[in-house]
Amino acid sequence: MTKHIQAEALSSTAFSPYGDVIETQCSASDSMNDRRFDRFSDLASVDIVGPEKAMVHVVRSIDATSLPYEFVQLERHPLGSQAFVPLSEFVFVVVVAPPGDKVDATDIRAFVSNGGQGINYHRGTWHMPLIALSAGQRFLVIERASTEPNCDSFKLDAPVILDVLPDTA
Amino acid sequence: MTKHIQAEALSSTAFSPYGDVIETQCSASDSMNDRRFDRFSDLASVDIVGPEKAMVHVVRSIDATSLPYEFVQLERHPLGSQAFVPLSEFVFVVVVAPPGDKVDATDIRAFVSNGGQGINYHRGTWHMPLIALSAGQRFLVIERASTEPNCDSFKLDAPVILDVLPDTA
Repeated sequence: MTKHIQAEALSSTAFSPYGDVIETQCSASDSMNDRRFDRFSDLASVDIVGPEKAMVHVVRSIDATSLPYEFVQLERHPLGSQAFVPLSEFVFVVVVAPPGDKVDATDIRAFVSNGGQGINYHRGTWHMPLIALSAGQRFLVIERASTEPNCDSFKLDAPVILDVLPDTA
Repeated sequence: MTKHIQAEALSSTAFSPYGDVIETQCSASDSMNDRRFDRFSDLASVDIVGPEKAMVHVVRSIDATSLPYEFVQLERHPLGSQAFVPLSEFVFVVVVAPPGDKVDATDIRAFVSNGGQGINYHRGTWHMPLIALSAGQRFLVIERASTEPNCDSFKLDAPVILDVLPDTA
């Protein structure tokens, strides 16, 4: 039987087995530059294996991906963390499973952001390739500058359906 | 006599002695994730000295800083690059001088972004501490996770005034 998953609200606590949440809402801040700025420090650590550097990309959605959305494959990056930070206020959905050699479909979880959050997948976290709910959405990406392969994929035994979001049903 | 500087338009060519411009406007893109996204690759390299990692912060302006703005000090980070990427569309101004032991005031230049650009200061680039033209503006910051000192400052012989922007004069 096809498995359905519903997205939960993204929070740093719920997401902690999979990565970091980059947000200002719940973090303690200090100030800098003569108190011109609040500073929300160390929201994500860029975890890179070896002497390689991190690189910064921007990706922009060409089309909207509509929910419900069926997928059968997850991926992971064994050599580095990978951050996605929206460059304007919009909601997005991520699907994750714990690190490990295999993915057990019963372990798959989905999270929906609140519009002001970004995420940083820990090295090795299984995740669905990025989708966007609208066209033209831009994400900043921070990941390892790899010349060697840094993406494993895992095909599930049966497709999983990411259901429509609770408030858009 | 007090020196005045006017901000030039930020472009990757003009800014190249000082750092990278993180933008999608002028970059060639490829596509990814089954052509769901345009990808603007390697817009900035995170240049970190030693085995330390990069960290991600968010800073949010408490107040607007108005122009003209007088400053007398620049800073540099000898151990790593430092990126500032607006988390929504807004214009900001950076002031820079080339790497070196000293700053010659005649070498100071200012750049104003077009609203959709971020920047990454190269390691060692002298720059004015960040200012924001409005309150509540959020920047993503990517820099070295330093336990050791990583900020030199240089006091100019005389104050420099960053003039009002051409289109807001």
